[in-house]
Amino acid sequence: MTTTPVRIGLLGCGNVGAAFVQLVERRHDEIANRHQIDLQITRVAVRNLSRERAVDLDEAVLTHDADAVVHDPDIDLVVEVIGGIEPARHLTLSALKAGKPVISANKELLANLGAEIYEAAGDAGVDILFEAAVAGGIPLIRPLRESLAGEDIRRVVGIVNGTTNYVLSRMAEEHVSFGEALAEAQELGYAERDPTADVEGFDASAKAAIIASIAFGVQVVAGDVYREGIAELTPGDLSFAARLGYVVKLLAIAERFDTPDGAEVAVRVHPAMVPEHHPLAAVRESFNAVFVEGAAVGDLMFYGRGAGGDPTASAVLGDVIDAALNLTNGRASRLSRLSEATIRPIDDLRSEYYINMDLADRPGALATVAGVFGDHGVSIRAMEQEGMGAEARLVFITHGAVESAVQSTLAAVRDLEVVDRVGSVLRVVGGDDS
Amino acid sequence: MTTTPVRIGLLGCGNVGAAFVQLVERRHDEIANRHQIDLQITRVAVRNLSRERAVDLDEAVLTHDADAVVHDPDIDLVVEVIGGIEPARHLTLSALKAGKPVISANKELLANLGAEIYEAAGDAGVDILFEAAVAGGIPLIRPLRESLAGEDIRRVVGIVNGTTNYVLSRMAEEHVSFGEALAEAQELGYAERDPTADVEGFDASAKAAIIASIAFGVQVVAGDVYREGIAELTPGDLSFAARLGYVVKLLAIAERFDTPDGAEVAVRVHPAMVPEHHPLAAVRESFNAVFVEGAAVGDLMFYGRGAGGDPTASAVLGDVIDAALNLTNGRASRLSRLSEATIRPIDDLRSEYYINMDLADRPGALATVAGVFGDHGVSIRAMEQEGMGAEARLVFITHGAVESAVQSTLAAVRDLEVVDRVGSVLRVVGGDDS
Repeated sequence: MTTTPVRIGLLGCGNVGAAFVQLVERRHDEIANRHQIDLQITRVAVRNLSRERAVDLDEAVLTHDADAVVHDPDIDLVVEVIGGIEPARHLTLSALKAGKPVISANKELLANLGAEIYEAAGDAGVDILFEAAVAGGIPLIRPLRESLAGEDIRRVVGIVNGTTNYVLSRMAEEHVSFGEALAEAQELGYAERDPTADVEGFDASAKAAIIASIAFGVQVVAGDVYREGIAELTPGDLSFAARLGYVVKLLAIAERFDTPDGAEVAVRVHPAMVPEHHPLAAVRESFNAVFVEGAAVGDLMFYGRGAGGDPTASAVLGDVIDAALNLTNGRASRLSRLSEATIRPIDDLRSEYYINMDLADRPGALATVAGVFGDHGVSIRAMEQEGMGAEARLVFITHGAVESAVQSTLAAVRDLEVVDRVGSVLRVVGGDDS
Repeated sequence: MTTTPVRIGLLGCGNVGAAFVQLVERRHDEIANRHQIDLQITRVAVRNLSRERAVDLDEAVLTHDADAVVHDPDIDLVVEVIGGIEPARHLTLSALKAGKPVISANKELLANLGAEIYEAAGDAGVDILFEAAVAGGIPLIRPLRESLAGEDIRRVVGIVNGTTNYVLSRMAEEHVSFGEALAEAQELGYAERDPTADVEGFDASAKAAIIASIAFGVQVVAGDVYREGIAELTPGDLSFAARLGYVVKLLAIAERFDTPDGAEVAVRVHPAMVPEHHPLAAVRESFNAVFVEGAAVGDLMFYGRGAGGDPTASAVLGDVIDAALNLTNGRASRLSRLSEATIRPIDDLRSEYYINMDLADRPGALATVAGVFGDHGVSIRAMEQEGMGAEARLVFITHGAVESAVQSTLAAVRDLEVVDRVGSVLRVVGGDDS
């Protein structure tokens, strides 16, 4: 059997990089046998040569000069698992310009400068593959790019951050507070010591931007994504949602609207109430899942491990094999050029809303509040009073309403004397009208 | 913008074929814009020229001579949605030999003669793509072939027949009998007038054979698949499963085992109890889902519409675009050659079992039965007696046990005087030990 050697330059050897080295070792012979390619990890660029690593690498393989790896004529293909914007950006661009395919797990780079990177790959006629950048080991980017290439995708709704999904699962199932659940996630290694990127939805926003770009073929960057985190949620919100038949999830939502003036795209990340029979509601613990709604294909969902060394390394390896086979055949995967997007702001989006507020113990208070909703054209689907007297709490679910109208309603409601406090406001996603 | 014309010969214009014609019409301009290909449905072969069709086709396009379509020099690419073995087999082989990519939705052909078809495509260096043959619109074949090309896939467990999943959902949720649920499925068009292929698991077996071939890279045909249907299940079985925390599903299961003498593969279709928290348990109505267990990637699931004109046409269109782009670049997708498989028979497989039986009202009956289990080395995890006296019914769940040992146990138990009847026997899949 003849195999073609493919010499890999690995940039970064942290959690994912080390798992990738081990996975290539374990799967080398089977891959050679099935695909006739001989994967070799020829050079590995690391920041600190003397640091202890989870893998044994020959000293001759290790270097701290990432540029030298990219420009080494003995390197056929580059795997970038450094993360962050620089030096990842110039290393990726250099590799592509040198005609070397790049496999990237770098969501920050692609969510902010994707158009530049994709264009450089297109100009050079080489592969840029990045399955690992979104939802870890779950095959999502390839199905969106290829399987659904002809599909009219209307909406993508994803649970793309495992940390927050773990925290919300624990809060819902064990009735612990946000802080307790987060501390537990940190102990288990699911959350960073500084959890801001996860908890405030920055990580999910970057992934949402990449998903929107690929699903709709338009340029969306992380800054285009409307964003709310989960830190304000209480176990009470989650149990009330459960009683109404909903599960609260942090969702990344990308939508496409046709208008007479062309397509508009809206991308947002916020906690939302998902009906308990919706497939996303069953996604528990640190799992990820991405729900895709297409005009012809209907509803699809992709579920799996969104993070972790091994699952992410598996996604990298799938891309490496694809790029390696393309290399040996002198070809590259297509990536349609991204057109400019018109971003529809959150104010113009329609949703059902769950709203709770503390009400003064006064006759007619409820009628006053309901009147304000009506004045702003926000129609109430269900309203329930919990508790009595000074403890009275009012919960609304609205019919589909426009965000700006709901925000005006809330502003007016907050000014009412009979309203002590407006608590959580949650959008409903995946219901009949959302 | 320059587009390359790609002239499609469509074989068959039934439910899927007509949906495909309409989908190409709707999506033509967007596809031309995004992928620079101009999809043209140039000729359509149908059995009966005068039959009413859901789509308007020019008379010059329609023909009843499928061979002429395949050999027409004006046809670049063939879509086969006739189904069945012949004439689909020779048409597919002729097209491939003529250097034309074939997009196939034909599970019977691929499940029985896949190796011959794949080899012909490999020899000719053209694409054979068949996303639509398994699980309708769900991207599954491409992720298995490409995204997971480097993954050590251990097991694939799928709900791949929408009819039986609908019937089982109704039986579980509405407590109706198998016959009632089936009649309802027939009224809704989810089940054929002759439901044998669905209900007895033949349809799922064909899909299981294709999945096993692609996931493990080995030759598996429909005849290698162990098969049981769902006609014997009662609403009682389903509600008892529910009380124990399980949902009953008809599963297609493909497993790979490493042995000192090489890999063995086991493929089977039978109803099984799935733990209620398993993602497959949440797959309701006529939806399909395929759960993949990989050594590095962990658990994955692909969920969506497994049948229907539009979803299946969407899968066909994704493949058509892929093949068309490959054509314009003079390349073809890889399909690693399938090696011969050693099939591990059902007798040697390990599982947990749910068994129920009617017991005579006699002292020591239960101990006698339990003794027989012990004698055959089948260890009981839980045992419960339902009802009293003449109505007594005994339910067992075993620990993991080998099929042959369980079958010997059941044979011996049936011979006991104290046992009136052995009822349903269901394997547990997706539990801690299964």
